[in-house]
Amino acid sequence: MSSELATTPGGRFEPRWARRAAAAGNVPFGGERAALSLAYGFPDPALFPYAELAVAAGRVLHDPSKGAAALQYGKLQGVPSLLSMLASKLSHDEGLTIQPDSLLITGGSSGAIGLAARSLVDEGDTVLVEAPSFTGAMNMFRRTGAELRSLPMGPDGIDVAGAEAALDALHIRGIRPRVLYTMPTFHNPTGLTLSEAQRGALLGMARRYNLIVIEDDAYRDLYYDGQQGALPQSLYALDREGRVIRTGTFSKILAPGLRLGWALAQPEIINKMLLLKEEGASTPFAQQVVVEYGRDGVLMSHIAMLVDAYRQKRDTMLDALERFFPAEASWTRPAGGFYVWVTLPASVDPAALASHAREEGVDYVRGESCYCEQPSQPGTRLRLCFSMLRLDDIEEAVKRLGHAIYSFM
Amino acid sequence: MSSELATTPGGRFEPRWARRAAAAGNVPFGGERAALSLAYGFPDPALFPYAELAVAAGRVLHDPSKGAAALQYGKLQGVPSLLSMLASKLSHDEGLTIQPDSLLITGGSSGAIGLAARSLVDEGDTVLVEAPSFTGAMNMFRRTGAELRSLPMGPDGIDVAGAEAALDALHIRGIRPRVLYTMPTFHNPTGLTLSEAQRGALLGMARRYNLIVIEDDAYRDLYYDGQQGALPQSLYALDREGRVIRTGTFSKILAPGLRLGWALAQPEIINKMLLLKEEGASTPFAQQVVVEYGRDGVLMSHIAMLVDAYRQKRDTMLDALERFFPAEASWTRPAGGFYVWVTLPASVDPAALASHAREEGVDYVRGESCYCEQPSQPGTRLRLCFSMLRLDDIEEAVKRLGHAIYSFM
Repeated sequence: MSSELATTPGGRFEPRWARRAAAAGNVPFGGERAALSLAYGFPDPALFPYAELAVAAGRVLHDPSKGAAALQYGKLQGVPSLLSMLASKLSHDEGLTIQPDSLLITGGSSGAIGLAARSLVDEGDTVLVEAPSFTGAMNMFRRTGAELRSLPMGPDGIDVAGAEAALDALHIRGIRPRVLYTMPTFHNPTGLTLSEAQRGALLGMARRYNLIVIEDDAYRDLYYDGQQGALPQSLYALDREGRVIRTGTFSKILAPGLRLGWALAQPEIINKMLLLKEEGASTPFAQQVVVEYGRDGVLMSHIAMLVDAYRQKRDTMLDALERFFPAEASWTRPAGGFYVWVTLPASVDPAALASHAREEGVDYVRGESCYCEQPSQPGTRLRLCFSMLRLDDIEEAVKRLGHAIYSFM
Repeated sequence: MSSELATTPGGRFEPRWARRAAAAGNVPFGGERAALSLAYGFPDPALFPYAELAVAAGRVLHDPSKGAAALQYGKLQGVPSLLSMLASKLSHDEGLTIQPDSLLITGGSSGAIGLAARSLVDEGDTVLVEAPSFTGAMNMFRRTGAELRSLPMGPDGIDVAGAEAALDALHIRGIRPRVLYTMPTFHNPTGLTLSEAQRGALLGMARRYNLIVIEDDAYRDLYYDGQQGALPQSLYALDREGRVIRTGTFSKILAPGLRLGWALAQPEIINKMLLLKEEGASTPFAQQVVVEYGRDGVLMSHIAMLVDAYRQKRDTMLDALERFFPAEASWTRPAGGFYVWVTLPASVDPAALASHAREEGVDYVRGESCYCEQPSQPGTRLRLCFSMLRLDDIEEAVKRLGHAIYSFM
């Protein structure tokens, strides 16, 4: 019998956490938002198709077979009609032939990234991410017990030559990463997009260093500067070896509250990820509603409307940055997605600026949180999200943030 | 640069799995069901409140503030109004005072069990389960890298004296389990319920051996032989140390396709589990619909209707077993839940019986799959679920299964 009782003097039990839990930091998305928040990558709730989703929900629940499928336990991989709809959309987007057995419906794309991480990463493994990268994904990799190492980014996304040099340096030290997590299209937080040539180079690097690539492609549909066909193909589409797991989501193109995303990968990988899916099928009710909503091209028309609306928001933010930010600041001009990445002189103290901005009623994501290692280039960086606020609020937020920055110049 | 290319001769990449993924068995819930299936613990789809949920979904989506909350990213812990509703129901059920900060909304109760497992179990740890136990939960513990050891059950659930002897034997071998997973009420697969005295003894054992207890309480509302107040209190209610994580679900009392369950535990544990929740909030859309549906006691009336319907199904199955099963068979008489546990002489070959039953159009869960170690008592065991089929189909399924069994006598 054990004599070590894990109770405090007051008699309260104190659990001994698993290492992955003990290492977990603070609650993600904690704290209250500022009045004018440029922090979170939330879609604009004014753009959700409320009435259409209500009609779809009613149709599903009043149809005996759809209703029963919506409310019963569903296939772990996903509702077959949603898998078909998605396979057909993703095939059409890039001129591919995607079969439903290459897809897994997940709880948002974070659910897909989490499953990929748990399928592929053991405690002590090294995972490669971009510098900077998406904090939420980095946390999920950390919680599998992985060490994170970063690869450099240039003006158009990941710097493949620099990445190879970094990988060589790791290999010399006996560190052999197995997984690369990358966002080649409308990157979070920088907004940058990798050219097709560099995508080929990246896949060559993945082959030479034997990496599996997790391609986070949450924003591809939200391209503001041309037709979909003008975008470089996804890494998944360019890959010939089955080395890429591409993740996507309905959160940015429909509604995050449905919590539906997906993984697209070779079926062997899909089957393995599925085994680690603890919560069962991702809400069959929401899946059926999306299928019903998405009939007859309605989803594609909705996306076209979103592209127009978010393009205006991006343009408004870029205009406001020109007007209200000092000449010492520089920023990216994203062709899609939700984010502008601002670089300020290193003399601007990040904590003091965040605090000053808060007093002005503005918040944003501090650049430091987007790096797993000290960045090689000096500077204070901010991720500004233009998706959620109204146009006049975007302008006002950037104006106030500009005032805050000037006070440090 | 690595020379070990993980590509097959045909050029196809073969991932190197994380150990937890490599060890994962086959796809859960695989294969087609028989025409008359007694296998899965699915609620009867004829009992889902389709029209009421359609009204609730319409109300949510047509109300500006509820609609926006339903479709946006939500609080990771859960939608506040659902947390309050659930805290109030669980408080009322057992005369407790439960605060919303003790609750986490999860993807079914399997989502809660998975999060508890990942929060508490490291690779190589030992987790205690009952013999027999719920296969789905055992698989989740295995996938955290745990070894499973089983504790004996008697005619009324876990045999606490036998369990202490088993724990002493493990301690002597240097094995110190930290987690006990138990289903004291309407146990899956046996249908048994632990007495209140034995619950106290179990908590004493948990204290002496310093165990955290995961109490899977998916079926408590479905009590067929008396008022709720006549049931022994949950381990969570009896515990004075904060040593119990109690999990529950809307799957059995409302609809599994909403994928909503919960964990109830001290707030420190809730906060830790929340950090490992990769998929974000559990479908805010479904949470809002449940809140809207559940106003004015509608959920409690629905549960009362379910209790009457499932009681009839249980009685029908027990009557059919008396009529169609041989005298050598014995079975439990559950006071609630979904399952009857049948024991046949060891001379009945489990694989041959399953195959014969399939030919008769009947399937069930084979008892062997519910044990993590060889059971100490001989016998061939079957879990029969009475929840999903119509009354006449329950009778027909038991009749056919009885025929199959007689052929082995």
